[in-house]
Amino acid sequence: MARADALAGFSEEAGRLTRRYGTAALVEAGEAVAAWMRAAGLSVRRDAIGNVIGRSKGSDPGAPALMLGSHLDTVPDAGRYDGALGVLAGIAVAERLRAGGVAVPFALEVVAFVDEEGARFGTAFLGSSVLAGSFDPAALGRLDGDGVSLEKAVEGFGGEPGALGDARRAPGSLLGYAELHIEQGPVLEAHGVPIGVVTGIAGQTRAALRFTGAPGHAGTVPMELRRDALVAAAELVVEVEAVARDTPGLVATVGDVTVLPGAPNVIAGQADLTLDVRHPEDRDREWAVTRLRERAGEIASARGVECEWEPLHDQPAVRCDPGLTGRMWQAVEDVGLEPHALVSGAGHDAATMAAIAPVAMLFVRCAGGVSHHPDESVDEADVAIGVHALTRFVELVAERRSSHSEGGS
Amino acid sequence: MARADALAGFSEEAGRLTRRYGTAALVEAGEAVAAWMRAAGLSVRRDAIGNVIGRSKGSDPGAPALMLGSHLDTVPDAGRYDGALGVLAGIAVAERLRAGGVAVPFALEVVAFVDEEGARFGTAFLGSSVLAGSFDPAALGRLDGDGVSLEKAVEGFGGEPGALGDARRAPGSLLGYAELHIEQGPVLEAHGVPIGVVTGIAGQTRAALRFTGAPGHAGTVPMELRRDALVAAAELVVEVEAVARDTPGLVATVGDVTVLPGAPNVIAGQADLTLDVRHPEDRDREWAVTRLRERAGEIASARGVECEWEPLHDQPAVRCDPGLTGRMWQAVEDVGLEPHALVSGAGHDAATMAAIAPVAMLFVRCAGGVSHHPDESVDEADVAIGVHALTRFVELVAERRSSHSEGGS
Repeated sequence: MARADALAGFSEEAGRLTRRYGTAALVEAGEAVAAWMRAAGLSVRRDAIGNVIGRSKGSDPGAPALMLGSHLDTVPDAGRYDGALGVLAGIAVAERLRAGGVAVPFALEVVAFVDEEGARFGTAFLGSSVLAGSFDPAALGRLDGDGVSLEKAVEGFGGEPGALGDARRAPGSLLGYAELHIEQGPVLEAHGVPIGVVTGIAGQTRAALRFTGAPGHAGTVPMELRRDALVAAAELVVEVEAVARDTPGLVATVGDVTVLPGAPNVIAGQADLTLDVRHPEDRDREWAVTRLRERAGEIASARGVECEWEPLHDQPAVRCDPGLTGRMWQAVEDVGLEPHALVSGAGHDAATMAAIAPVAMLFVRCAGGVSHHPDESVDEADVAIGVHALTRFVELVAERRSSHSEGGS
Repeated sequence: MARADALAGFSEEAGRLTRRYGTAALVEAGEAVAAWMRAAGLSVRRDAIGNVIGRSKGSDPGAPALMLGSHLDTVPDAGRYDGALGVLAGIAVAERLRAGGVAVPFALEVVAFVDEEGARFGTAFLGSSVLAGSFDPAALGRLDGDGVSLEKAVEGFGGEPGALGDARRAPGSLLGYAELHIEQGPVLEAHGVPIGVVTGIAGQTRAALRFTGAPGHAGTVPMELRRDALVAAAELVVEVEAVARDTPGLVATVGDVTVLPGAPNVIAGQADLTLDVRHPEDRDREWAVTRLRERAGEIASARGVECEWEPLHDQPAVRCDPGLTGRMWQAVEDVGLEPHALVSGAGHDAATMAAIAPVAMLFVRCAGGVSHHPDESVDEADVAIGVHALTRFVELVAERRSSHSEGGS
């Protein structure tokens, strides 16, 4: 917790925490993390994008490594636990294993990804995408708000834009990736549970909708002659909630509505809205999106209004690895708790890493589900339980490897 | 129509029509109008706020005057008929009566009010409020966007801020005020009718509503744990339309919604909306407002959301004078049309003038109901019918006065 407070001091802005890719604040945070990694007995390197990776040798030099970690960057005006807690937990596990004299057969790596939020270049999961080999070099041309390209930012950060492709970890070089993260939601708190085992990361569809009707004078156009874009949009907002409530596991959100001309005495001629739909099962999400698209069209045509639906983003769901997740489940039991399973509605580096490694995730309860906000808060006792369970998880993976090795598999 | 085109040339801005109170464009437009008034045989004066008033003597010097007119100012990027058409129609009526050698017993006045839109100082109905004695001197301290006070603007316009109270016309000095105006709505067009007799001006309630829920991550907060301010607001938007559709004569509009934080992946913590409710009968409007206020509270409490309702404005309905309106009805019949009655949903100078004089209004069909926009358009034939009917209206009022005089009343 003291380290999380210390990391929160590395910010681009005085008085609030903002730490985006390529900034001096992120360099300094990375150096602090590297120092703590070395103190935990890990050898430290930075890869071509700047991810900080600490590694302890395992007893079997040929065995694939187990990687723990999360990300070091933040959104603007952030809290201090989103990402950072998973990096610090990984270091704490390495320290505990070392202090306890626990030898594991595989190398243990702790990674601090440099960009998961994408707050500077719109490049979410940048750090893990380089490791997973899913980085698209076209993104190097992206500009930040000051016109600086990602390519320049990588160079300025001490990275090598030309070597990003080679920074990919070969599938098979990792026996797993496990990430501890704050829940960023209210479920564990609502159940009175300090930690939870994540079984999957929901898929996500984002779309932009535009209803176009006819503007008009709020006093002179009778109700039956109106083509009000905002009432159409409002009907859909209500429908989005209804479809989500009727579909177990679905969350669907209209987070913003913009009205034109947007005057109190003018009927809305245009209403734009954002749509975000998530579900752990791709088929259920796709069904809901199809249903909402149909309803948007029906609502519009019943009102003589146009509806445009622009698909923005479709990300499939990721299942956590059943084997690793079983070990996480047992680790939670071994620290004396009844395990609680939940699906992550937020995206995480683990989703990207799933392309090259089995992944598991452990959530830590956060106060009120608040995240991406200075009020983000976790209980020290919950974090201790989380680190304890994550340590036990590594031991269980090691035991399993050993017993496999003993069994010759 | 040529004069309307000429007036449109007097603008604050090149390439679009904007003519607000106290500007050089309004001075020039007033001078053009004064010249046309003189050519129509009217003697012209300006009152303390700058209203241009032309007057022809009647055969009975002691009789109260009949006033025709409308306003000369515009909203930014306006059309050329809103207001101007009523001023020009008044002048045209004076010309026709003079050309036809029609002597009326009362003085005929044509007024060009200098500010009805209130686009510069937020002072709607400024010109007519001075005549009607409802001007509030506190408004002299209001500043425009450049920090110029209304008081300075009145002085710069050649007016006398200290004499505004005395500019009030005594009730009894006017036997009536009649205003021709474009409809600014689609009703006459929908009925295929060129002109309509206005029976009243709807009362209006404006309010600002704020729903306050809890912001949250669109992926991590399950539907049943949400307190989504936007879904609450959307339910009310749908309800506003439903109440209006169920209440004959009511129009109710949510013209704008503003969402905070307003991000695609964040549940709305706050949604502000504007409400505008109008009805020709105050009791029906008040009933609808009460009903909507109850519904807003019910929707909010069912969702664990707060709702604040801030009343902004309550303007009672104005009934056009049955006697004068009967003459207008007959005038429309006399020009060979089946009269069409309608209520004005927009406010007009006639509503202000109703405090000191019986009022009547005649609407002219406009294309698509479009107003406050460069596309505002009227048909020349419709305008001719309107001027014809308004002339006949003055003759009918004169006949009625004469027959009354003959009867000794």
